[in-house]
Amino acid sequence: MAGEPINLYELEAICEGTLPQNEWDYVAGGATDEITLERTRSVFDHIALRPRMLAGIPDADLSVSVLGQHIGLPFMLSPCGSHKRAHEDGELASARAAAAAGTILAVSANCSYAPEEIARAADGPKWYQTYFYRDREQTVDRVHMAEENGYDAICVTLDAVWPPKRERNIRNSYQRLPTAGEAPGLAPPKDLTKFNSGISSRSRVDPGASWDDVAWLRSVTNLPIVFKGIITREDAALCAEHGVDALIVSNHGGRNLDTTISTIEALPEVAEAAGDVEVYLDGGIRRGTDVVKAIALGAKAVMLGRPMFWGLAYAGDQGVVHMLDILRDEVETTMMMCGKARIEDIGRDLITRLPELR
Amino acid sequence: MAGEPINLYELEAICEGTLPQNEWDYVAGGATDEITLERTRSVFDHIALRPRMLAGIPDADLSVSVLGQHIGLPFMLSPCGSHKRAHEDGELASARAAAAAGTILAVSANCSYAPEEIARAADGPKWYQTYFYRDREQTVDRVHMAEENGYDAICVTLDAVWPPKRERNIRNSYQRLPTAGEAPGLAPPKDLTKFNSGISSRSRVDPGASWDDVAWLRSVTNLPIVFKGIITREDAALCAEHGVDALIVSNHGGRNLDTTISTIEALPEVAEAAGDVEVYLDGGIRRGTDVVKAIALGAKAVMLGRPMFWGLAYAGDQGVVHMLDILRDEVETTMMMCGKARIEDIGRDLITRLPELR
Amino acid sequence: MAGEPINLYELEAICEGTLPQNEWDYVAGGATDEITLERTRSVFDHIALRPRMLAGIPDADLSVSVLGQHIGLPFMLSPCGSHKRAHEDGELASARAAAAAGTILAVSANCSYAPEEIARAADGPKWYQTYFYRDREQTVDRVHMAEENGYDAICVTLDAVWPPKRERNIRNSYQRLPTAGEAPGLAPPKDLTKFNSGISSRSRVDPGASWDDVAWLRSVTNLPIVFKGIITREDAALCAEHGVDALIVSNHGGRNLDTTISTIEALPEVAEAAGDVEVYLDGGIRRGTDVVKAIALGAKAVMLGRPMFWGLAYAGDQGVVHMLDILRDEVETTMMMCGKARIEDIGRDLITRLPELR
Amino acid sequence: MAGEPINLYELEAICEGTLPQNEWDYVAGGATDEITLERTRSVFDHIALRPRMLAGIPDADLSVSVLGQHIGLPFMLSPCGSHKRAHEDGELASARAAAAAGTILAVSANCSYAPEEIARAADGPKWYQTYFYRDREQTVDRVHMAEENGYDAICVTLDAVWPPKRERNIRNSYQRLPTAGEAPGLAPPKDLTKFNSGISSRSRVDPGASWDDVAWLRSVTNLPIVFKGIITREDAALCAEHGVDALIVSNHGGRNLDTTISTIEALPEVAEAAGDVEVYLDGGIRRGTDVVKAIALGAKAVMLGRPMFWGLAYAGDQGVVHMLDILRDEVETTMMMCGKARIEDIGRDLITRLPELR
Repeated sequence: MAGEPINLYELEAICEGTLPQNEWDYVAGGATDEITLERTRSVFDHIALRPRMLAGIPDADLSVSVLGQHIGLPFMLSPCGSHKRAHEDGELASARAAAAAGTILAVSANCSYAPEEIARAADGPKWYQTYFYRDREQTVDRVHMAEENGYDAICVTLDAVWPPKRERNIRNSYQRLPTAGEAPGLAPPKDLTKFNSGISSRSRVDPGASWDDVAWLRSVTNLPIVFKGIITREDAALCAEHGVDALIVSNHGGRNLDTTISTIEALPEVAEAAGDVEVYLDGGIRRGTDVVKAIALGAKAVMLGRPMFWGLAYAGDQGVVHMLDILRDEVETTMMMCGKARIEDIGRDLITRLPELR
Repeated sequence: MAGEPINLYELEAICEGTLPQNEWDYVAGGATDEITLERTRSVFDHIALRPRMLAGIPDADLSVSVLGQHIGLPFMLSPCGSHKRAHEDGELASARAAAAAGTILAVSANCSYAPEEIARAADGPKWYQTYFYRDREQTVDRVHMAEENGYDAICVTLDAVWPPKRERNIRNSYQRLPTAGEAPGLAPPKDLTKFNSGISSRSRVDPGASWDDVAWLRSVTNLPIVFKGIITREDAALCAEHGVDALIVSNHGGRNLDTTISTIEALPEVAEAAGDVEVYLDGGIRRGTDVVKAIALGAKAVMLGRPMFWGLAYAGDQGVVHMLDILRDEVETTMMMCGKARIEDIGRDLITRLPELR
Repeated sequence: MAGEPINLYELEAICEGTLPQNEWDYVAGGATDEITLERTRSVFDHIALRPRMLAGIPDADLSVSVLGQHIGLPFMLSPCGSHKRAHEDGELASARAAAAAGTILAVSANCSYAPEEIARAADGPKWYQTYFYRDREQTVDRVHMAEENGYDAICVTLDAVWPPKRERNIRNSYQRLPTAGEAPGLAPPKDLTKFNSGISSRSRVDPGASWDDVAWLRSVTNLPIVFKGIITREDAALCAEHGVDALIVSNHGGRNLDTTISTIEALPEVAEAAGDVEVYLDGGIRRGTDVVKAIALGAKAVMLGRPMFWGLAYAGDQGVVHMLDILRDEVETTMMMCGKARIEDIGRDLITRLPELR
Repeated sequence: MAGEPINLYELEAICEGTLPQNEWDYVAGGATDEITLERTRSVFDHIALRPRMLAGIPDADLSVSVLGQHIGLPFMLSPCGSHKRAHEDGELASARAAAAAGTILAVSANCSYAPEEIARAADGPKWYQTYFYRDREQTVDRVHMAEENGYDAICVTLDAVWPPKRERNIRNSYQRLPTAGEAPGLAPPKDLTKFNSGISSRSRVDPGASWDDVAWLRSVTNLPIVFKGIITREDAALCAEHGVDALIVSNHGGRNLDTTISTIEALPEVAEAAGDVEVYLDGGIRRGTDVVKAIALGAKAVMLGRPMFWGLAYAGDQGVVHMLDILRDEVETTMMMCGKARIEDIGRDLITRLPELR
């Protein structure tokens, strides 16, 4: 199709031109000075690849196994609230796209359509994302809903226990869209503090949850448990110790706390400490080379958040498929040019020139 | 209150738009090329946080103990000359704001109102800042005044023994405002050199003062002694050796000597050498994450200089309260998102990616 | 000659003003975000020279021995496709220039004139560049052609086994020029993927070729074998192990895979692992100091790609001679000012301040 | 005097506005891409000072001993050609200024006035700069002239054995001014190569001179010998071995070879290897802090080149005095604020955050 966007940056520009300013700011923005937002992306560009020649690989196989499930791509769709802000079909479109492309959609607790309806929208594998709510029965209710509707894993977001300070939203007096089950126009919960933009249901999330809650969660479900928001070796080790099945290295896309470490910088220490816990990376992925770098540094797969909205705004489910297709093509090109036939062949020696950490 | 500034940078912009150019330049400017001025601020942005998850903290307690005094916030107001340049109420307003917010105001030797009057303006804890004057009796006089008026500590500024070269002021032919007790329109003391802007009473300050003077100062007062302007491990060790109660890591806001090390860079070595001496950091604090980083690297609390003027220029005492409230809120958000319930839980492991020093 | 370009950047600007936009983009551009393209050049500027005084050298000898052949300059012309895009005389002009300047032209598999004709155009030494084609008989055919026409070595390009993503070309719907033996206007082979710009004959190149193919290639020719595209110590060691005669450290001018390491950064580890294999550096050379730095870090000589097109566009063979003459003069100046009389006197101690790799 | 320039940058701007473009370019420019020119200056800004408090110093003594001669300032005037390009009085003005300020003028081999006349212009200490000419008798002649006219040392410039490539001058078709003894309008010697701007008498300079010539030079004069252009530890050690009295760390102001190491970066290793040889630093000094940093890293004093022209262009000898006075004042301020009473108290511990070299 002539004139189609050829990379994720072009998709982003289309989305910026399509969405109302306040919705664009909500999708694109981050916490306070947006330093982490910027660095989480740009630091990838400073990591260098060391491609190998004459590897004897006629083609590349991009498939990976995630929580025992075989998927065709080493990237998945992150849990993000209210897909409707980018396209009327919202999560229904995203689910169709993920299934068509052969990967997993993680459905957010704050979805625009009912998770039961999303589950029925397409056949592909899906995860359901929830929180440790102050009222743990709400968590149990959501877990059981997920089980009953065929979700394949429970993803618990850990790094959203307090209202973030997103200054674009404050300046826009941003009102979040109602999520599934809320009345249209429902006012957002009162901000916890006047300077924060408490625009999601965070006030129901329990900042007092602790590692002791893992055993409790395990006791109420047999689904695999995925923790999202781990960014240190210490917490990775605690995941392993408490029997979490997988973790997502994430700084919430730079949206919650500014100047936190970028995810690709945190990845090596997290992966080293995670033991048998599967590790995925979220944040900053825009190019196939980014995917390959994350895998080289210890991720089993990566997750995409904002690019999903860009695809939705471009052309609904077909737009998301297009976005995934661009990335698939770039990963394949990178693997072929680096002499790596399979994802598991991609190792630390493919990388050099890492930023220094102390 | 709708339309209120939501961060310290917005307050700064309001102040710039409000003050006469020469007063703005005096507040905002620094020595010669302003390299230290810039770096003291920007280097904070390159230090990364490593937030911890599932810390099980229902809320955050921001209070600290400073010289045995319990205060509600981990930041205080630095001694700065002539608050009247930003608001008619000058230090009276600052004192009311500090008391209302539950923190300490350090009153400058060059205050616009008499320190006796400032002491009566509000109930909160206060420090009085002075110098080792060439005429030590002047120092004794000021110390006794402070004792008699209920000041809680004597802060001695060490890094202002010579006229600084502040080129904005030289170009403006800046005349400092008369301080309390001076006749209106009093001409500033003659500059020691024609290229310097000797606009304060520095010529009365003794560059010949030495560590031997600490014992002398201790002999004339029972108040705690706080030394301001320490920036090296060597001088921190000398503070400990000579029984100073507390020190402030400060480069005078980049105002006195250019290309000195930034305060957050100097902090780790100073804190390590300081032993039992309490350590506070001054300079460059604009965000709650900055406060938390300084504490992680060894400060017991931090001090705010220019932001106080911004608050005064915005709305007098209410403006300073607003400034402190913004910062309080950002520190709380940072602590909650990093999993730190109390200030003393914030340690070195919360930080990574420090600039390299040799 | 007054008004002549005095450095390679001026030649580049002339070329940009001369070529049609799509041809300029083809010559100047690189893969995706062009990060490697930029860094491969700019990183030279951060490497510092340590010139030696009183070295007692009346003049400098720039000649080197390459594969046993004595040439007058420590730089050669890289194999690049279709010189006709810059000048009607194409490779015939380049061959004349190389011979006149006393260096080697490497003729590309995708040349505008028949390699037999180019061989006859001038007397100087020449290499022929080819691939491991899927149909190995094509490779044999090309090797035999090269032998029969007096080429002095076979250069095999290894890092072009897959269509690169060159976004300038995609946006231009770039159609490559027909190469020698193709009908005019011949459509390029179908792109392997819709996002790539498969504008050369790469689809005939075998990504399944492996190190086992070296012995096979050796069995079909007695010409020296030069491998182009080595960028890691591992592959350099494999070159040595398999008896390759020489290798070219190259990232294909940043044209094939983005964010690969720059060539001068890779050079030290490659040179160390290469043993008796001769090492040349390709990519980013614009100044005589760049040549000297590459030699100091282990290269026997360097290769020039884009500057050859700039010279061609400026004045055909005379333009290329002019380009080579500028560089010769700059290398001589650098050697004289560094106290190095001969190329082999240039060693690692002439260099400091290398970018850090891990 | 109101409205006088308050720093060296303002003097520079005045000079730029005063000189004809081609003379300005000659003074301000450097070799090829001017990377060394820029870095030699800017790298100072990244080095941080660690000022000490309560040092008990009533005042600062800026005097130093240079080759056994006591001078009032830790900076001298570098040998630079043709001062007339900035002021009609040329070196006569510079000599008067140096004497008035109490420092040394090094007179260039390419001076606008006869060195005999310059020697009589003022009473202060002076050095004469010369070369190892191809015709060593010319060197002997100059050395004897220097001795007979009371010059205090012979400075031999080592890093100018070949015509530099200064592209501003090439583009300007710059013709250097005739030096003393040449006929007005005398054409410059033919450039050695067409791309270089061989605008001084360099073609008479012998690139074949070697360390063996030191003993010869010593045999023809009893004056102290100062070598200018040393930038490596190896050559510093050779200076010590051959009994040179002093050396100047210099990259010829970035004018001769580009991308050489900056002088302040080279200084530590040179100073360490120099043993009893006195070390001075040339290049990039614009602020009093720069002077202090150079001394902290091992220089006994520093030398000023371009700023001398700025002072001359501003107001002849009085302009140079003004320039020296600004710098004197800044050095004094730096010493007082760093707690250093004498130049010899300034040591390595005053410095941190050096750029990394390998």
